[in-house]
Amino acid sequence: MPKLWNETIEAHRRDVREAILMHTSALVAEHGLRSVTMSQIAEKTGIGRATLYKYFPDVETILLAWHERQIAGHLEHLAQVRDQAGEPAARLRAVLETYAHISRRSRRHGDGALMAFLHRDEQVGHAQRRLHDMVRDLLAEGAGVGVLRADVAPDELATYCLYAVAAARELPSDDAVRRLVMVILDACV
Amino acid sequence: MPKLWNETIEAHRRDVREAILMHTSALVAEHGLRSVTMSQIAEKTGIGRATLYKYFPDVETILLAWHERQIAGHLEHLAQVRDQAGEPAARLRAVLETYAHISRRSRRHGDGALMAFLHRDEQVGHAQRRLHDMVRDLLAEGAGVGVLRADVAPDELATYCLYAVAAARELPSDDAVRRLVMVILDACV
Repeated sequence: MPKLWNETIEAHRRDVREAILMHTSALVAEHGLRSVTMSQIAEKTGIGRATLYKYFPDVETILLAWHERQIAGHLEHLAQVRDQAGEPAARLRAVLETYAHISRRSRRHGDGALMAFLHRDEQVGHAQRRLHDMVRDLLAEGAGVGVLRADVAPDELATYCLYAVAAARELPSDDAVRRLVMVILDACV
Repeated sequence: MPKLWNETIEAHRRDVREAILMHTSALVAEHGLRSVTMSQIAEKTGIGRATLYKYFPDVETILLAWHERQIAGHLEHLAQVRDQAGEPAARLRAVLETYAHISRRSRRHGDGALMAFLHRDEQVGHAQRRLHDMVRDLLAEGAGVGVLRADVAPDELATYCLYAVAAARELPSDDAVRRLVMVILDACV
């Protein structure tokens, strides 16, 4: 087959895959993890069941693929926020505030069973370690130039920051999230 | 039956119950939640299976009773720590440090399945609300006398404190826990 034809097929496969992930996450958000079937997903996506099975073996695998893409998107976003101009404390604040909003939004998606299922995934642990390293490096950078505290190791301070930021899940508003991040940073200077 | 006889029976029942809780928690810590049976518990406690069933219907109920007693003990201990002499910031530090040590120790008991099972219990939510209120009241008291920050509502600050303290679970030493609590309190003044 000519190269162009292969590329068209590749692009088509990506589009179908994309559509499957999108419709599955919508169906699961609406009906819950346990009640969504491959037939429903095929119907909603507008493809045959046999075609769907050429892409994914079951609902769980689709959801994990969707979640993996979500996580990768969040990490990329956080890295962009980190790489913006500004001094270390301001960039740390931006990273923590962005992560606080992500935590708060993802809590509102889906039910407890869904969260528990997704968070057994080892991708989550991997992403959390990358986030921890990102925050630790910003803290070390700030301590190095004397704008953030140096009496506690950046690694320990990063653990503190990420646990404290998780409080965003329980906060009622964006303003409360902003206050939370201000409080957390007050402990880092 | 004379009153004395009733009291003796009551004391005996309390002792047996106590022994059942103790041996069950030891068996579960050793073998895991799923593999412990009522027969093992009866044998370890030195009572018959029929007697054991007069006290508890199954292993899960025994474990929940044990956990409930643990939680009640922790709350009582935290209240004692809170009620010691000293100004509000020192008492807040003492409460947070005590809770940090409890979190760290309870993480080291048992496996993930056991934690997940116990933490579905509504007693845990109830205890966490009481702890939240205890910390909130100490923060409000400190803000009232001007030693703790008053620009963020005590309720929000308490949420922050309790999420941040949970970082103790990942810390390697008592010294690290002390540093964590120092950092958290730096954000509350």
